[in-house]
Amino acid sequence: MDHNLLLADRTRQINASAIREILKAASRPGTISLAGGVPAPESFPIEIIRKLSNKILDTYGAGALQYDLTEGFPPLCNALSGYLANKGIAAEPDDILITSGSQGALDCIGKILISAGDKVAVEAPTYLGAIQAFNPYEPEYIHLDSDDNGLIPSSLEKAISSHRVKFVYIVPNFQNPTGRTISLERRREIASIITRHDVLLVEDDPYGDLRYQGIPIPAIKTMAAHHVIYITSLSKVFAPGLRIGFCLAPQNIRKWLVIAKQGVDLHTSTFNQALAAEYISGGFLKETLPEIIRIYQPRCKKMIDTLDHYFPDGFHWSRPDGGMFIWVEGPTGFDMQNVYRESLENRVAFVPGKYFYTTRGKGMETMRLNFTMATEEEIDSSIQTISEIIKNRMQIRAA
Amino acid sequence: MDHNLLLADRTRQINASAIREILKAASRPGTISLAGGVPAPESFPIEIIRKLSNKILDTYGAGALQYDLTEGFPPLCNALSGYLANKGIAAEPDDILITSGSQGALDCIGKILISAGDKVAVEAPTYLGAIQAFNPYEPEYIHLDSDDNGLIPSSLEKAISSHRVKFVYIVPNFQNPTGRTISLERRREIASIITRHDVLLVEDDPYGDLRYQGIPIPAIKTMAAHHVIYITSLSKVFAPGLRIGFCLAPQNIRKWLVIAKQGVDLHTSTFNQALAAEYISGGFLKETLPEIIRIYQPRCKKMIDTLDHYFPDGFHWSRPDGGMFIWVEGPTGFDMQNVYRESLENRVAFVPGKYFYTTRGKGMETMRLNFTMATEEEIDSSIQTISEIIKNRMQIRAA
Repeated sequence: MDHNLLLADRTRQINASAIREILKAASRPGTISLAGGVPAPESFPIEIIRKLSNKILDTYGAGALQYDLTEGFPPLCNALSGYLANKGIAAEPDDILITSGSQGALDCIGKILISAGDKVAVEAPTYLGAIQAFNPYEPEYIHLDSDDNGLIPSSLEKAISSHRVKFVYIVPNFQNPTGRTISLERRREIASIITRHDVLLVEDDPYGDLRYQGIPIPAIKTMAAHHVIYITSLSKVFAPGLRIGFCLAPQNIRKWLVIAKQGVDLHTSTFNQALAAEYISGGFLKETLPEIIRIYQPRCKKMIDTLDHYFPDGFHWSRPDGGMFIWVEGPTGFDMQNVYRESLENRVAFVPGKYFYTTRGKGMETMRLNFTMATEEEIDSSIQTISEIIKNRMQIRAA
Repeated sequence: MDHNLLLADRTRQINASAIREILKAASRPGTISLAGGVPAPESFPIEIIRKLSNKILDTYGAGALQYDLTEGFPPLCNALSGYLANKGIAAEPDDILITSGSQGALDCIGKILISAGDKVAVEAPTYLGAIQAFNPYEPEYIHLDSDDNGLIPSSLEKAISSHRVKFVYIVPNFQNPTGRTISLERRREIASIITRHDVLLVEDDPYGDLRYQGIPIPAIKTMAAHHVIYITSLSKVFAPGLRIGFCLAPQNIRKWLVIAKQGVDLHTSTFNQALAAEYISGGFLKETLPEIIRIYQPRCKKMIDTLDHYFPDGFHWSRPDGGMFIWVEGPTGFDMQNVYRESLENRVAFVPGKYFYTTRGKGMETMRLNFTMATEEEIDSSIQTISEIIKNRMQIRAA
């Protein structure tokens, strides 16, 4: 039988991620990867997880292995309520919905909100995982502009004045792919705009805890609670392989997210939720986070320094205060795909920035660099390699 | 803001499961629950999981906590290839897709195959979780008839001759909710029908390993590999809280399922997949399964015996060789909802059978009884309670 004839209309919208192929190439032995968005394995609290695995079997017994509520394992919801309070976000345990990674929240949001043709406003460039979650529900995207201070509020106001936008999706802290953070002043403006226009905002904040300098900026959720779905994940501060994310949505929306999630996976792993509950309530997250930051902070600084040192004039890069990524923009007309190919031959991988745009032909001159998976030495040599390839190509271009 | 105005058209199709409320009522302390579809907690291999948690951290280290492939953790795919071979199902590790429970497979199948208005043929009654997975993609259901030997092949042939059916969904072994198993002869007929009509079949087999008597019957997948997506789960033979399911689909379909799953949850928990891999490859599943069967077999027998003993004429029940459920059908016009209400007042819970039909008004006289969560004594007393309520109502009816 020709199985392709059976595919739903929406399946045409679901594209294989080109980044999958890039990450495959990047994982070849001997290649320095600045491509992934993956935590350093040395940041994982293996021995704590060993201890907690034993503890949760003692504490919860069969309950850690049994079916559980779709909404989330109650001890984890309790722990997360305290975790959010530390960020200034007021949340009762019953306000929280645990999801299978933040991806699980994005999928359910797309599922309950997007009808085919609905308009979703996103930063350009934006997080690819969100696009992959939303695409099967067939939205159209409206693009929002940003600069070194993150999303530009006037661009948001213009977009929601001229289009009927179902919701706005942003990553406020150390954005993927740009590393940019929306300033406090702009957050206040954004909160005011969405409240005034009565528009829903999805605030996706997986990187907020990974701050290497400066002071934390309050979430937009704290400024417009009723208009914001706040999403975050323990993947970057605990262990991504446990697939624990969660969201905080207005009750009228959470109710539907729960029902949607029940159809998707019944509930997130009880065992892993119990691990996460103990990790937070036992104070291990608080204890371990500074150690993770101690690994990443010098790598971030090293990458900015080497870019400053090696990269030619005409190129501009973000100077993030945290997160996992630096964004490089070359001169208009420069094609980063060619640099990518040549870098890979020289065993250095990164992601060409064009993949983070939903409009074809945009971002050809950009790249995303990850600094969490490479050592400082590797960062130095790989940035030098990329910079030489770029300089050669600039000369060819000038000639 | 009025969040309800934001809901997608499809969200109207996503109904809150009435069974959620029933299960909540059933979980009240002091109530004997024949309502759930939940494994007995005493069947969980807690000490093995403790040992294996330690072992996988030794063996895989950070790899057990890291992001992993959407397709599945390779050691688990390897182990499952052998597990399936023991069932006579030929599957290379690369043919397998690990999902977050079998629910995760059902959701992705719905997502890539169902366009609004597409016809999906299901047994009546059928597994509610499948309906919840498919509904958001807005199918129409065609109902297939079954009897004590399971799905009636002529009903299938008639349905796919008179409708353009996107796929057929069935549970061949110890079906939820009826406990019925499709006979070998009928499986051969079904394989022949779907091959002849070139129709795709989704064969959902979470209960096949829980056989208490008789010999296993080969999966339809072994008879029409190219026309069948075979799904199963480790929830009933390992631990449901780990959320490990998997499916075996023709490569052209698996390819799209992988892409869809990437947007839903990136991948299933690496840690839990590593646990499952060691559980199977270490021989623990083979060793533990007979112990699980030793718990359930006498409960199944006890429930059939007490039904035979207490229930009045005019009622008929399935006599399953395995699984978790017995299906009771009363005389036409009898309303089991009233029995449910009165039983609950007497601290006995079950699920009225009407909830397993997609057509309103069907199955009013039916009920699903679960026998895995109650002891033999509880089964005896609760069936006696229900039977007295039924007998009283029959007298009122006769009067």
